[in-house]
Amino acid sequence: MLNVALLGAGRIGQVHARSIAANKDSRLVAVADVMAGAAETLAAAVGASARSVDDILADASVDAVLIATSTDTHSDLIERATAAGKAVLCEKPVDLSLERALRCQAAVAGSGRPVMIGFNRRFDPNFAALKSAFDAGEIGQGELLSVTSFDPAPPPVSYVKVSGGLFRDMMIHDFDIACWLMGGAPAKVTAVGSSIVDPEIGAAGDVDTAVVTLAWADGRIAVIKNSRRAGYGYDQRIELLGSGGLLSARNVLENTVEKITSDGASSAKPVYFFLERYMRAYEAEWTAFVDAVANGTTPPVTLADGVAALACAEAATRSRASGGTVEITADMLGR
Amino acid sequence: MLNVALLGAGRIGQVHARSIAANKDSRLVAVADVMAGAAETLAAAVGASARSVDDILADASVDAVLIATSTDTHSDLIERATAAGKAVLCEKPVDLSLERALRCQAAVAGSGRPVMIGFNRRFDPNFAALKSAFDAGEIGQGELLSVTSFDPAPPPVSYVKVSGGLFRDMMIHDFDIACWLMGGAPAKVTAVGSSIVDPEIGAAGDVDTAVVTLAWADGRIAVIKNSRRAGYGYDQRIELLGSGGLLSARNVLENTVEKITSDGASSAKPVYFFLERYMRAYEAEWTAFVDAVANGTTPPVTLADGVAALACAEAATRSRASGGTVEITADMLGR
Amino acid sequence: MLNVALLGAGRIGQVHARSIAANKDSRLVAVADVMAGAAETLAAAVGASARSVDDILADASVDAVLIATSTDTHSDLIERATAAGKAVLCEKPVDLSLERALRCQAAVAGSGRPVMIGFNRRFDPNFAALKSAFDAGEIGQGELLSVTSFDPAPPPVSYVKVSGGLFRDMMIHDFDIACWLMGGAPAKVTAVGSSIVDPEIGAAGDVDTAVVTLAWADGRIAVIKNSRRAGYGYDQRIELLGSGGLLSARNVLENTVEKITSDGASSAKPVYFFLERYMRAYEAEWTAFVDAVANGTTPPVTLADGVAALACAEAATRSRASGGTVEITADMLGR
Amino acid sequence: MLNVALLGAGRIGQVHARSIAANKDSRLVAVADVMAGAAETLAAAVGASARSVDDILADASVDAVLIATSTDTHSDLIERATAAGKAVLCEKPVDLSLERALRCQAAVAGSGRPVMIGFNRRFDPNFAALKSAFDAGEIGQGELLSVTSFDPAPPPVSYVKVSGGLFRDMMIHDFDIACWLMGGAPAKVTAVGSSIVDPEIGAAGDVDTAVVTLAWADGRIAVIKNSRRAGYGYDQRIELLGSGGLLSARNVLENTVEKITSDGASSAKPVYFFLERYMRAYEAEWTAFVDAVANGTTPPVTLADGVAALACAEAATRSRASGGTVEITADMLGR
Repeated sequence: MLNVALLGAGRIGQVHARSIAANKDSRLVAVADVMAGAAETLAAAVGASARSVDDILADASVDAVLIATSTDTHSDLIERATAAGKAVLCEKPVDLSLERALRCQAAVAGSGRPVMIGFNRRFDPNFAALKSAFDAGEIGQGELLSVTSFDPAPPPVSYVKVSGGLFRDMMIHDFDIACWLMGGAPAKVTAVGSSIVDPEIGAAGDVDTAVVTLAWADGRIAVIKNSRRAGYGYDQRIELLGSGGLLSARNVLENTVEKITSDGASSAKPVYFFLERYMRAYEAEWTAFVDAVANGTTPPVTLADGVAALACAEAATRSRASGGTVEITADMLGR
Repeated sequence: MLNVALLGAGRIGQVHARSIAANKDSRLVAVADVMAGAAETLAAAVGASARSVDDILADASVDAVLIATSTDTHSDLIERATAAGKAVLCEKPVDLSLERALRCQAAVAGSGRPVMIGFNRRFDPNFAALKSAFDAGEIGQGELLSVTSFDPAPPPVSYVKVSGGLFRDMMIHDFDIACWLMGGAPAKVTAVGSSIVDPEIGAAGDVDTAVVTLAWADGRIAVIKNSRRAGYGYDQRIELLGSGGLLSARNVLENTVEKITSDGASSAKPVYFFLERYMRAYEAEWTAFVDAVANGTTPPVTLADGVAALACAEAATRSRASGGTVEITADMLGR
Repeated sequence: MLNVALLGAGRIGQVHARSIAANKDSRLVAVADVMAGAAETLAAAVGASARSVDDILADASVDAVLIATSTDTHSDLIERATAAGKAVLCEKPVDLSLERALRCQAAVAGSGRPVMIGFNRRFDPNFAALKSAFDAGEIGQGELLSVTSFDPAPPPVSYVKVSGGLFRDMMIHDFDIACWLMGGAPAKVTAVGSSIVDPEIGAAGDVDTAVVTLAWADGRIAVIKNSRRAGYGYDQRIELLGSGGLLSARNVLENTVEKITSDGASSAKPVYFFLERYMRAYEAEWTAFVDAVANGTTPPVTLADGVAALACAEAATRSRASGGTVEITADMLGR
Repeated sequence: MLNVALLGAGRIGQVHARSIAANKDSRLVAVADVMAGAAETLAAAVGASARSVDDILADASVDAVLIATSTDTHSDLIERATAAGKAVLCEKPVDLSLERALRCQAAVAGSGRPVMIGFNRRFDPNFAALKSAFDAGEIGQGELLSVTSFDPAPPPVSYVKVSGGLFRDMMIHDFDIACWLMGGAPAKVTAVGSSIVDPEIGAAGDVDTAVVTLAWADGRIAVIKNSRRAGYGYDQRIELLGSGGLLSARNVLENTVEKITSDGASSAKPVYFFLERYMRAYEAEWTAFVDAVANGTTPPVTLADGVAALACAEAATRSRASGGTVEITADMLGR
């Protein structure tokens, strides 16, 4: 039984609390949040205690911490928690600063404690099935990967301003998907982006629509399309062309009903909300973490994976600014 | 908060126990089973007490009972529980004997207690969405309904022998779907069936493959196809032709991955297990029951609905034996 | 090069004229029609001569006749043409009268001339691909066949009155599909039908909505659904459950465009017109006839096949009238 | 009736010959080819004369020429034919050299003769339906366009060497699709490409896998994915995200049959051959040309459109070489 403390009792923290409770091998014992009330409410609901971070890290009976605080605290908390001997699952991204994330990676390297980064989409049953078919060789070597990732609606501009930008905040997931499927970080990143959905996003210095192309040294290519506004729902698709065929994972739809009239055929749209789409992914992510800790194996998403995705985001940000391709160097990956 | 006792701790009882626990307005307080050990195990797992049926029915603090015992006990337990003032959710079918079900219906008529029959498929999100679109007039008047319902694999012949036959045991669900969508029981039933999947099922006097046509007095028609063995999974589809178009609910698939190679395109098959397909339906069914009891409204599936489906099964059994169409008379519906 | 005369210059005759012209091994040399003007117009358009039937049958240079005249003349023309040594492709049905069709079958039996009945749907590329996969054993033994066949809109009542009824006029195609896939005529036919689309069709003694169940002696079952009015297009589907899986042929859609908005997803409806759906089938049908004549092989759809479909229609008509199952006896098949 | 001469009797010339014959308002009167035998064979088959180009251009009874010769002759023949007063439909691309194409554009500007470039895909019924829905405002403003265009198998390296490269030879179609849907040429082009399918293609200085991003001044973006080898068929899809939703055109499949077994569901792959996919597009393209000439209207694909697509190809070629974004300047479009 893994005794778990949850740092951060906001929306995503509450999602994780449910996964921790649903897993028969883990138990949520403590919750911390900068808003004491939030920690207390959640703790009460799940039968845990609201405690301070210091208190939690000093408690030897706490085996693991799940970090779901604001991004600017991730690196610090990862370092402190591993130093205190805890296993860590930390929400993405590791940090908004690649440099800070690299220092974090260096700091925890010697701790021997497992750190997993919360790239939940790897655990989506559809994406996992695609990966599994690909790894089984069903389409031969991967050649051209295409990731479509559209949010239903743009966030408030106030959020955009502190988000680190679309590449670090939103496309970070897709960079991880690309590195995961292609087996490592790309050599080069080329980004094109614009603000066409909401001019205020552009005024804030960010983009809301972007296409990023990743190239590996051996010629493999990935292209990621992001939009902050699909309108119709959460559009999350993967398509991988290999030497022997094509694998694709389509959207999850609201239901399976189809109607045909003289106006045409109509059917359900993709589910709108990320929790509806990825709830099972969050549960499977937590199970994978618990299993890795229990078995002493490397977590399926490492801190190095978190750094690689962030390096892609950093390169994309620079490429978009310069209009040229940007290389991912070894030092950007902490090697 | 509804205090609930569960009668029957077998597979389907355990499914319901989860729904009762998941609903914030209900609490499982007691479990009974003819196998004392089964009741105790389940009760312990959910924090309830294992008690006898007599004890439960005599306990005024129990508001409702969920009957998930063997079919031959349903009518008795419905009668006793309503007489004891409990609200009742009873698994389908009401009884294998239409005559006994009609007596049960008469007996509880005066009790004023709500009795709901567990036709869970009405609460499947896909079927519910189809019903909702149909009720909204999206395809005009219903004219020709088609229900496909194939099990993945036939049950053991030992089960078949006590099941009451395919029409009462399996197609009972589809009869209810038809009556639900068409707004009441049909006037005539015509059944064709055979034993082609497993000759032992035929030797036991039952069929494993059947087509039943229902006709309403105003000319509307429904056709139900059943097979005990689809092999590839749980094939559950509805298709309704109306004066203004067609509505259909397709299967729920294992995932959304598609592969295309020179051999063709391939994708996932329907989910195999009824729980995978209908877990959300069971939860929604329970919620609907709890809400009806709380609000004092008629449950969405009544004992009369249970009798109507059983009358169809009775008529189909007779039609198949005689080779002719059988009328559903008013007295078969207890009118 | 096959010299062909076309008897009947109406709509379907014109369709066949195009197929004859498109086939490099056949040549349309003569056209006959009771409306002299129609024959002349068509003949002029295709470079053939308008001639009388007598004249055509007496002309030794005519190798084959394609009979696309009114149904009541089919049997006579088949008999006369084969007696005159011609190969014959005759539109369905052989006759409205099973008894007359049986006499025709007997009459031509000794002629040694090939007679093919125009069940064009067997040559639809989708249905042919389904048949081919089935024959290759891809789903094992066929157990439960389902044929959906809806017209977009009902014909005028004046046509209905002389059509021979839905079973002989419309469902005849589906009876042939069933016999073709199941490998021969069924043992028993059970029909349910009503007039719900257009009460005038009912007043004329016919049905516009019907479900017919066919049962073979070994337990295999087929069910056919017909409606005179789908509204949205020509709905033509086949679904065959076998011991090892399910094969289905879906509709042909107007195009492949899909739209997703906040209102849901929409896509194209089935093609509306039978020629749009079956033009390639008509061409392939003609090619098959020409090849059979050239190679001296039995045509892929025989006069016996035409009789079998008509026997099903006859049995369905009787079943619907009596409310009971009707057997297909050996003498109904001319055996 | 338009009297047409066909220049070029190769594979694509033969395709066009069929379209010319199928159109009731055009007649193929002459065929020219550098291989005299090829011209004679085709001319004989269609009832035209084999003649020299000089002879054809000097013949006042020839109204239009269809240029289907090798690419290096296109500009010359366009100039000579328009100077001779002919209407012209010329196969894509206008030229391999943008500079030469621009001179051609300037040269024919004063002729007043209509010149249409053969971007057949605009006339594909699926793509045309997508365009039509988009133009009707069904998804609001276009924001992010995605074009997938994979060939089934790479051409011989000998062909690659003289093709002008993937961007001019293959992606030229997709550049046109993008300019057509987005309403004009983009401002910037960013290309990434590699040779991963066939190293000999790379050795010949070309790529076989490429992603090109087009950006318009107002922020709209298009991304084109090309591969020389999909293996499974001709993969041709368009997907357009707009402010109000998504429009997509999926592939055309070989048939509509689906099979479900315990191994999963399988269905047909995309049609393999470009003629199977685009035959109807070639016919509609020719009809559009004949109609434009007859009505004196501007052809639906102009020489300027041909130049715009070539400018994109030129920019993509340069971008791929430099690793940076390349602007499309006004002079690259002949403005």
